[in-house]
Amino acid sequence: MKEKLRAGMIGGGKGAFIGAVHRIALNMDGLIELCCGALSQNPDKAKESGRELFLPEDRIYGSYQEMFKKESELPEDERMQFVIIVTPNFAHFEPAMMALEYGFNVMIDKPMTLTLEEAKLLKSKIDETGLLLGLTHTYSGYPLVKEAKKMVADGKLGNIRKIYVEYPQGWLSQLSEGDGNKQAAWRTDPTKSGKAGCMGDIGTHAAHLAEYISGLKITKMCADLNIVVPGRMLDDDGSVLLKFDNGASGVLIASQIAAGEENDLNIRIYGEKGGLKWSQQEPNTLIVKWLDAPVQIYRTGNGYLSEIAQFNTRTPGGHPEGYLEAFANLYKNFVLTLSAKLNNEPVDPLLDFPTVEDGVRGMAFIDNVVASSQSDQKWWDFVV
Amino acid sequence: MKEKLRAGMIGGGKGAFIGAVHRIALNMDGLIELCCGALSQNPDKAKESGRELFLPEDRIYGSYQEMFKKESELPEDERMQFVIIVTPNFAHFEPAMMALEYGFNVMIDKPMTLTLEEAKLLKSKIDETGLLLGLTHTYSGYPLVKEAKKMVADGKLGNIRKIYVEYPQGWLSQLSEGDGNKQAAWRTDPTKSGKAGCMGDIGTHAAHLAEYISGLKITKMCADLNIVVPGRMLDDDGSVLLKFDNGASGVLIASQIAAGEENDLNIRIYGEKGGLKWSQQEPNTLIVKWLDAPVQIYRTGNGYLSEIAQFNTRTPGGHPEGYLEAFANLYKNFVLTLSAKLNNEPVDPLLDFPTVEDGVRGMAFIDNVVASSQSDQKWWDFVV
Amino acid sequence: MKEKLRAGMIGGGKGAFIGAVHRIALNMDGLIELCCGALSQNPDKAKESGRELFLPEDRIYGSYQEMFKKESELPEDERMQFVIIVTPNFAHFEPAMMALEYGFNVMIDKPMTLTLEEAKLLKSKIDETGLLLGLTHTYSGYPLVKEAKKMVADGKLGNIRKIYVEYPQGWLSQLSEGDGNKQAAWRTDPTKSGKAGCMGDIGTHAAHLAEYISGLKITKMCADLNIVVPGRMLDDDGSVLLKFDNGASGVLIASQIAAGEENDLNIRIYGEKGGLKWSQQEPNTLIVKWLDAPVQIYRTGNGYLSEIAQFNTRTPGGHPEGYLEAFANLYKNFVLTLSAKLNNEPVDPLLDFPTVEDGVRGMAFIDNVVASSQSDQKWWDFVV
Amino acid sequence: MKEKLRAGMIGGGKGAFIGAVHRIALNMDGLIELCCGALSQNPDKAKESGRELFLPEDRIYGSYQEMFKKESELPEDERMQFVIIVTPNFAHFEPAMMALEYGFNVMIDKPMTLTLEEAKLLKSKIDETGLLLGLTHTYSGYPLVKEAKKMVADGKLGNIRKIYVEYPQGWLSQLSEGDGNKQAAWRTDPTKSGKAGCMGDIGTHAAHLAEYISGLKITKMCADLNIVVPGRMLDDDGSVLLKFDNGASGVLIASQIAAGEENDLNIRIYGEKGGLKWSQQEPNTLIVKWLDAPVQIYRTGNGYLSEIAQFNTRTPGGHPEGYLEAFANLYKNFVLTLSAKLNNEPVDPLLDFPTVEDGVRGMAFIDNVVASSQSDQKWWDFVV
Repeated sequence: MKEKLRAGMIGGGKGAFIGAVHRIALNMDGLIELCCGALSQNPDKAKESGRELFLPEDRIYGSYQEMFKKESELPEDERMQFVIIVTPNFAHFEPAMMALEYGFNVMIDKPMTLTLEEAKLLKSKIDETGLLLGLTHTYSGYPLVKEAKKMVADGKLGNIRKIYVEYPQGWLSQLSEGDGNKQAAWRTDPTKSGKAGCMGDIGTHAAHLAEYISGLKITKMCADLNIVVPGRMLDDDGSVLLKFDNGASGVLIASQIAAGEENDLNIRIYGEKGGLKWSQQEPNTLIVKWLDAPVQIYRTGNGYLSEIAQFNTRTPGGHPEGYLEAFANLYKNFVLTLSAKLNNEPVDPLLDFPTVEDGVRGMAFIDNVVASSQSDQKWWDFVV
Repeated sequence: MKEKLRAGMIGGGKGAFIGAVHRIALNMDGLIELCCGALSQNPDKAKESGRELFLPEDRIYGSYQEMFKKESELPEDERMQFVIIVTPNFAHFEPAMMALEYGFNVMIDKPMTLTLEEAKLLKSKIDETGLLLGLTHTYSGYPLVKEAKKMVADGKLGNIRKIYVEYPQGWLSQLSEGDGNKQAAWRTDPTKSGKAGCMGDIGTHAAHLAEYISGLKITKMCADLNIVVPGRMLDDDGSVLLKFDNGASGVLIASQIAAGEENDLNIRIYGEKGGLKWSQQEPNTLIVKWLDAPVQIYRTGNGYLSEIAQFNTRTPGGHPEGYLEAFANLYKNFVLTLSAKLNNEPVDPLLDFPTVEDGVRGMAFIDNVVASSQSDQKWWDFVV
Repeated sequence: MKEKLRAGMIGGGKGAFIGAVHRIALNMDGLIELCCGALSQNPDKAKESGRELFLPEDRIYGSYQEMFKKESELPEDERMQFVIIVTPNFAHFEPAMMALEYGFNVMIDKPMTLTLEEAKLLKSKIDETGLLLGLTHTYSGYPLVKEAKKMVADGKLGNIRKIYVEYPQGWLSQLSEGDGNKQAAWRTDPTKSGKAGCMGDIGTHAAHLAEYISGLKITKMCADLNIVVPGRMLDDDGSVLLKFDNGASGVLIASQIAAGEENDLNIRIYGEKGGLKWSQQEPNTLIVKWLDAPVQIYRTGNGYLSEIAQFNTRTPGGHPEGYLEAFANLYKNFVLTLSAKLNNEPVDPLLDFPTVEDGVRGMAFIDNVVASSQSDQKWWDFVV
Repeated sequence: MKEKLRAGMIGGGKGAFIGAVHRIALNMDGLIELCCGALSQNPDKAKESGRELFLPEDRIYGSYQEMFKKESELPEDERMQFVIIVTPNFAHFEPAMMALEYGFNVMIDKPMTLTLEEAKLLKSKIDETGLLLGLTHTYSGYPLVKEAKKMVADGKLGNIRKIYVEYPQGWLSQLSEGDGNKQAAWRTDPTKSGKAGCMGDIGTHAAHLAEYISGLKITKMCADLNIVVPGRMLDDDGSVLLKFDNGASGVLIASQIAAGEENDLNIRIYGEKGGLKWSQQEPNTLIVKWLDAPVQIYRTGNGYLSEIAQFNTRTPGGHPEGYLEAFANLYKNFVLTLSAKLNNEPVDPLLDFPTVEDGVRGMAFIDNVVASSQSDQKWWDFVV
């Protein structure tokens, strides 16, 4: 890269959670400059938020439509090169589609859209334009997740037989959306969040992680989604039996009413020869168990790890890296890919981040898991 | 108690796994004397096994039928007071029924019988005779399991909403029954083990633990049982969605092909106010999580624990007690109850061990989980 | 063994802590029969205690002197074969010496005596009589401690460079000896406990463990013993810098005022190639770390462990064994050795338990650590 | 803050470890702009390194002398506002002193200087100029370290009695300085590193952490420093007995030959009422143990934590923050303080980072620990 890549942000004004996370992630490696933003639909808040981020006054926009128009009129070496969309789900599709129409690349929060149909339209647009879309399934950005994926791909565990993936949280154990909690309010509102609550918000992460590490695809599911907290409009809990395309079976658990849990995404994958376990809350440890040998503990930052794990790590072993570094890995991989494309250079095969295909698959997961839960049929075929 | 209670053992000859465990458990507290045995169907092996256990020559019997007859002819203050049945499942019912007919109390390994029908017959016989039957669901013998049960019963967690119970093992990851592994051979043979393999052997433990701690009953299930290792005759893996009688939902996982796992029975229960986790492989730790307060770690042997947890513990905190102590707690509770009954004394309400009711329920679990798995119907009503 | 070995107990009457532990340990494997006892100096308590243990009335003795005399007059195939001494430290030497004079073998709690001089006298008597003395340094009875010892002896870690051994407890954080706590009272009383409090009670365990696993001997020490709780008469805390006979250095920590700690004996040993960690509170896990390879976790009960570790284990992996099983291993190893000696059979080299030599070394540790702490000299030569 | 603060960097060219860490840390929160640098003494490498960091060509300097001169000639609203010194120890003092003379504030890596005398001169200069100096003792930047400090200060544990602080690493287990390892080479060279090796590099972190959390000061020490790897010029291992100004005692361990250890800084502090443990490798967990109540686990990012812990955290519970976030906290606290000073605004008392006083104390620790180790005297008075 010869210069920092220039990004604009849609959403993420004062008080937003995920917008602030995106900014830390894009700042971390010094490869990206946030040069403009349409940070809020409220013009005063947009202004104030932009100033807090030290944006130039004339690039703090009142709407994304204005941002796309004005930025596209700037000289090529000044205008933003990609847009970051961190609004709630219902406000993903339109700005993303418009960005692509203006020729801007896109980094977008998950789930990618409100509906599967929107997701497919985005994918068509990407196919048509050749632009880049990155999707922030943060958890596949962890170095030891990449190590686990490589270990499975290399056949270390033998043929995969069983996958347990869990994502318990406790923060919606009460009717927080009734108490002015903004994060809770839109996530539990079907008009803003989509067909699914818990399954859309975190179930998609779990499904992505399972498919990412195992290299397998879900083919059938049997879902039990629940609204546990009275008065809630969307599922806040669910369990799903799974079948994968190689014949393996599995279980996916996601809950936001597991009182006392923080953000305990974890996965166990068992093959003929051994099993592995990774847990997001202690992400620098990958446990590998064998049929008749001592358990092994792989740790982030060590020289015995694969090249891709090391590429996604910044410090030596024992200097814990966490959620923000995993998130920053998505940005680093995305902008290095984008930079190569912009400079007509070959893309390093190490560069790896979730794309529009993952976004479509995530939206299909939501559609299928809701349909399965509503069905009396035991096994539901996963269709995209 | 004025003297040790006298026990006879059926099965458990040389090389048996669970028989040896029963003997350690019954020895531990010095309350029981193993006075006789019909340790093997092979007379030579029975003899040799009896001698290794220092049994008197004339009380090493060639069959349980002989044992019941001869023991019943001994003076009351010499003859055995209860019989311990540690044969494979298919050889539980007949000796148990005969014992009751002779008036002997019974301690029996789980699952209680080969079929649900046999279990119900045993229960009728117990109801008729007033004799005592103990069932060795070891894991509810752990002090912190009893603490957890009390915590739930006392309402500390609020209304229970979610139960995850897991029992992954890896020891049947290969077709060990084809390699002369005796433990594997009978457990995977439907004529010896019953309708279910993994679900009978360990799924019943998981179901018992979930109902024991929560105080709830399973009412519906949706099961996916699998034969993962080619050539095996019974399920070696399964996952089950659950509904409980208070409306809570749950997931039960049991697998014997989770390569690299030892014996990782664990349970998580979430209520409105908090959740708890207990794991058999670190049994002296009970983790309790709260909605907005630090996590608590309860540890075996501390003065802040409930009376029942302390009663089932032998040493102060930091002196780890394990599987054998939990097993010994079943024996201790059983013989103290039996002693009280024999002496017409009131039974201390602290004394707690699984009984014939639990045995019937375990056999019903096997029947229902197999039926659910075979059914195309999503939800299967649990019937006893 | 053709019959159970017969033991008598001195001390350990009602309410005693360590006496009860000894009884569980000796019962566990069904190899020993407790046939008599002098359980208390108080005749009523002695009687009552004996009855609770179901001892025959005529073998419940009022004093150890009486016990030795009466037992020695019984026929050889009836009288006790070894005596177990579980009195406080000050009451170890006299009964042990008398037992040896009567020709009884001895199992004795640690520290072996009140003074180093007594210890040396016992050793001379053992050398003279050829009788067997076992010392209950429980912690070297754990299977993974034996695995660790073997790993070091086999050179897996290379030359040993550093040893950290720690034994923090918190139970004497307050002046409990002033509150009628019997365990606290004698342990903090120099006339009953000896020159050292904490260092005698638990520091000796730590020193034994370090020398046992490493195969090294302490040659120099620099000790800082403290009386932290005002009003206490003996050290309740201490830290010691160590030098070993191969040039390695180390640190030994023992404290009984580490508020909130239970019984956290743990050890780390580092060699040129790697390091190991074992912690008594999770005794079924041995962590082995390497210079440039993943960490390994060895677990009790697995087939990849050494023969000696497996010999000292009763159940398969994942069935946690704990303090009482470690204690029982001392008894098992002791009585199998004793049985071989009594039958003039060769002693299996796997049989391993602390002996009178360890007892002398433990008393020397106490002498030296107290002298070092009182000295202004930096390094104190460890002399026996 | 109205604009990003502008920083220049000395050292940290291509291939440097800690320079890259500083840049991630300063980038993370988007509060600082790296505007210039004298990144290497080699002009070509300086240029190349500056370009990789996207620095303007005319602000990539060939020496720090040039940088200070040229930057001081720039208009006030363009020139750098503070300098970051990330060279090896021996090259800290001169640029720091020159920066202060030019009126630039300073952020500097630890240990602050090569000698205690230099440290005192820096302190005098700070006192004289009123400029700000921040020192990157990273580990006191962790939110739960701040929580622990507050817990002690609030008297939750009662009077502090015992402190164990440990910092084992294994990366110098072999003579890496002979194999072209640059990090090893200067750290083990007394002309570049100073009087101490391991004790300077990591022992100072441990001492700082102990004094930071406890609020106590070391008053006496008894040190045993070792050169374990043959051929090395400075200590690679050491253990130190400590006394603190309230009468508490402690142990400090630092080693770089603890083979297999990564970066396991950890601390345990015990008071009259309870104890706490924090471990850098799992920094989001603070364990608090009590005399007779369940252990508590405090976790980063939860609402029950103190204001200062929450201020130093970016994400909710369960989103692990690590070493880089702790490092970024130092920068955030430093620049917010600096910004307030530059704008003549009051400094928020929450803002907390190590200063020149900590730097002097760290250098005194090195002097004293080396002197104590060389002395035959048992207790060495800590003098500054």
